[in-house]
Amino acid sequence: GYSQLPRSLDGLAAAPEWPMLRALLPSMAGLRVVDLGCGFGWFCRWARQAGAAHVLGLDVSENMLARARAEPQDEALIYRRADLEQLDLPPAAFDLAYSSLALHYIDDLERLLATVRRALAPGASFVFSIEHPIFMAPRQPAWITDAQGRRSWPVDSYQAEGPRRTSWLTDGVLKYHRTLGTTLNLLIRQGFIIRHVEEFGPSEAQIAQQPELGQERERPMFLLVAAEPT
Amino acid sequence: GYSQLPRSLDGLAAAPEWPMLRALLPSMAGLRVVDLGCGFGWFCRWARQAGAAHVLGLDVSENMLARARAEPQDEALIYRRADLEQLDLPPAAFDLAYSSLALHYIDDLERLLATVRRALAPGASFVFSIEHPIFMAPRQPAWITDAQGRRSWPVDSYQAEGPRRTSWLTDGVLKYHRTLGTTLNLLIRQGFIIRHVEEFGPSEAQIAQQPELGQERERPMFLLVAAEPT
Repeated sequence: GYSQLPRSLDGLAAAPEWPMLRALLPSMAGLRVVDLGCGFGWFCRWARQAGAAHVLGLDVSENMLARARAEPQDEALIYRRADLEQLDLPPAAFDLAYSSLALHYIDDLERLLATVRRALAPGASFVFSIEHPIFMAPRQPAWITDAQGRRSWPVDSYQAEGPRRTSWLTDGVLKYHRTLGTTLNLLIRQGFIIRHVEEFGPSEAQIAQQPELGQERERPMFLLVAAEPT
Repeated sequence: GYSQLPRSLDGLAAAPEWPMLRALLPSMAGLRVVDLGCGFGWFCRWARQAGAAHVLGLDVSENMLARARAEPQDEALIYRRADLEQLDLPPAAFDLAYSSLALHYIDDLERLLATVRRALAPGASFVFSIEHPIFMAPRQPAWITDAQGRRSWPVDSYQAEGPRRTSWLTDGVLKYHRTLGTTLNLLIRQGFIIRHVEEFGPSEAQIAQQPELGQERERPMFLLVAAEPT
């Protein structure tokens, strides 16, 4: 399961998109932070070390939260179980909302975005990553390899938004495919200004260190967005 | 060549993405409009009929402009030859900049966006379409069809931005692939706010009328963007 993934075991350094995501973040000094889908709490701890005033880590998995809470105690770091589909947050209470690879599991994204928008103070930031819709769209996602060994990523069903069930890690993981346009338009409609959009691909330095990342030059794997309240 | 395309012969009605693009446009009443890559002038004439005060149509092709000028004369509709790579426009002179399927031929897009930004008056709009980067990225673009007859669109080289030569219509058409993120970030950096992003796919009604459009449900074909000056 998740707990065996490199990014679960080794944290942010094992996530190839982390440097790109970090570059979208504001200075953490003094910020009130909420992490939507905090998992084992790697980002929450990083944010505190980087100077965040306090951090609220939310996850639907008690197992993950138990692992997060097992780390050395920090009174300014609170973990709470929450189903993001039903989330309530206090108004104007946070300077940064962050989410890594969680929002593509959410059916009612617009409700969640409205909740996040209300929870942000003036001048706040919203920075998140999701699986890229090109990565997620195909009904039977799989690379193909040509006679010369070049890989390509066949895309189908891009315009068919809705649930996708895959057998990644465990059978029947349920994700929600939305076009990139839909995700951006939901943000705009809920009162966000788009500040930056990145479609993760590995750098040459990353490929040199980790050659199996090379294929990720062929497709966009993750979508990273920085937005702020209007 | 271009002159035999349905959209060249029959105009806007033959462009399946036109209803989606039109929906992004402001009311034309009284607007000063510039069309970047006007071709035969179909949009320019539509804008005038919809109430635009005057329209400047720009294209690099004298042949296309000659065809556009052959239509019944309209003193508020001016056509001018211009290379969009070198474009100059007067400052704050337009209320709408429009471009249909032209900007993916531009190498120095950032220079052009800066020019457009300066040319827009407060409250103006910038609405454009380009080939979608997923459509344009592959080195040898072609559908594949599985044993059940389902089509998919193999994507490669997405992260490799730069020139793409294809043999569409004539050999060696030169286009410039940029990721979707890059296009949006250039807009933002040049002083635009993103208002709406559409990735064209045909509606069920369009497929009923034109079954060969059905495959365009599998991939995003065109990117449509509405932006405005900050």
